[in-house]
Amino acid sequence: MKAKIKSTFMIAGMSEEKADICAQTHTESSRDGVYSHGLNRVARFVDYVQKGWVDVHAEPALEKTLGTFEIYNGNLGPGILNAQFAMNCATEIAKKSGLGLVALNNTTHWMRGGTYGWQAADKGFIAICWTNTESCMPAWGAKTIGIGNNPFIMAVPRKEGHIVLDMAMSQYSYGKLQVTRLKNEKLPFPGGFDKEGNLTDVPGPIEETMRILPTGYWKGSGFAILLDIISALLSNGLSTSEIDKAGFGSCGSCNQVFIAIDPLKINTQEFIDNVLDVTIQQLKSSEPASENGEIFYPGEKSLKTRMENMELGIPVDVGVWEKVKELAGKS
Amino acid sequence: MKAKIKSTFMIAGMSEEKADICAQTHTESSRDGVYSHGLNRVARFVDYVQKGWVDVHAEPALEKTLGTFEIYNGNLGPGILNAQFAMNCATEIAKKSGLGLVALNNTTHWMRGGTYGWQAADKGFIAICWTNTESCMPAWGAKTIGIGNNPFIMAVPRKEGHIVLDMAMSQYSYGKLQVTRLKNEKLPFPGGFDKEGNLTDVPGPIEETMRILPTGYWKGSGFAILLDIISALLSNGLSTSEIDKAGFGSCGSCNQVFIAIDPLKINTQEFIDNVLDVTIQQLKSSEPASENGEIFYPGEKSLKTRMENMELGIPVDVGVWEKVKELAGKS
Repeated sequence: MKAKIKSTFMIAGMSEEKADICAQTHTESSRDGVYSHGLNRVARFVDYVQKGWVDVHAEPALEKTLGTFEIYNGNLGPGILNAQFAMNCATEIAKKSGLGLVALNNTTHWMRGGTYGWQAADKGFIAICWTNTESCMPAWGAKTIGIGNNPFIMAVPRKEGHIVLDMAMSQYSYGKLQVTRLKNEKLPFPGGFDKEGNLTDVPGPIEETMRILPTGYWKGSGFAILLDIISALLSNGLSTSEIDKAGFGSCGSCNQVFIAIDPLKINTQEFIDNVLDVTIQQLKSSEPASENGEIFYPGEKSLKTRMENMELGIPVDVGVWEKVKELAGKS
Repeated sequence: MKAKIKSTFMIAGMSEEKADICAQTHTESSRDGVYSHGLNRVARFVDYVQKGWVDVHAEPALEKTLGTFEIYNGNLGPGILNAQFAMNCATEIAKKSGLGLVALNNTTHWMRGGTYGWQAADKGFIAICWTNTESCMPAWGAKTIGIGNNPFIMAVPRKEGHIVLDMAMSQYSYGKLQVTRLKNEKLPFPGGFDKEGNLTDVPGPIEETMRILPTGYWKGSGFAILLDIISALLSNGLSTSEIDKAGFGSCGSCNQVFIAIDPLKINTQEFIDNVLDVTIQQLKSSEPASENGEIFYPGEKSLKTRMENMELGIPVDVGVWEKVKELAGKS
């Protein structure tokens, strides 16, 4: 999968080195079960490059440094490369100072947000990061879209498997609605409003209205608004309403914030291990809600899917896979 | 109200200066409509002092400094004083360096978390802060409580009214369940599970099972777990499972994280005003979901309630008010 994606990206004009990193990241997303932001996004990325919405040759440029806080301009370069660069800068600062924050303006879609949480955790750092997006969801109390779903990530390194939260501010993604509709199924819980303004768990009517439900109703709506404003103010970049007007597609000219912390600057490894052990033990010893049910820590299911997919192969949508092979085959 | 609360706290052993600050904060919470953490918590605070769970004479002590990142021990002092101190330290660091982070271990209940967001915003700083708590909610997939509701706050300063998000990781507080039950009403949306394991919007059966619903189901559950772990690791303090065992009541020996950022170190005031203006304009120009409906920015309703209560007086529960007067009258 990685080889095909890499060819695709090189045909789109990327250097081999950059294509390799981006292909690796897309492949890892599919490997971990985040199919919506792995193989499935390759064709759209190429389309964006062709439209001039992503500049495959651009490099991030330092705009400001305040010691532990740096700001970079992403110059509309590939979102994956910009975000990996920024998280790497944040961890480098944290390695020296305990805490590092890097804000990135004028970047493009970073694909799976969790990528950057896993990246920092692999190097032993605690991470918090988020992105703003174009409007795709109504604010609480509104019928028409006006806020982003602004994914938010927190990660903590752990030998036996990192603890990683990767959540968007909408209860379900449009991808989840589509997949559920195609299977003729219902959502596990209501995911938005139909055109009569009633909450529904049937995906089709929600896709029509675009009235997807914020995570936790008014809470996810408010959280999305604050994530957007703070990312714009920290990066000296564009807010959601301005991204809407920029016209560079999904997340084109968006901003991101990357915070890294070195836990070993504060605690011993024994202390860290104990916090993680007692917390996971408390989760695992809770009484399951359903018979034979299991309680997972954040990130645990991704790791399970990774193991399964590494053993059995990564499931793909045949149409999507054929399209990528076609794009790769033009070489 | 403030005078009565202040007397109560002085009778409980606080110095006049400290009692004044704490009474001011409790009163402001009730003034802003957060009744659950204002007047209504005064008697419990006094009870905790008498039990030795809060030390009214304790002062926070610096444990570690890493430049822009400082760690304090709250020494089980009054949560309000410790948290105001810590947020003040964070803003002082940010004033110099753009970014400041203060982690506080071994503290006690900070009452209304939004207090510290408003505090930072009043001084012109962007703020992010959160606390961990004792277990009060089941993790997603569990029947029995094992995680905290870990309130999380984000604030952005704005001349016409700060933008402030103050949210716990449970969809509703136990206070909201109780108030709704006493009025014989239903919750606006399902708030937890009854003893048959069905989601319900009737508060009584949820209070019985303690199976309150995390904000956004699995998302609020995961977010609560990460907030807990990160606060413990940043402060070198106790995780939720350890707070459960500490035996100092609600939030006794909890940890908090305070992040402050000076937006004027990054942007001009004109840039900041524009981000806030276009964002609020986009919210306000969305089509309302209901006839004559209005879309509010986070913090706007608190400000409206503040204005109303300043004009008409702060509504109180008669029993609660009589109890505080009784405690204050012992002098």
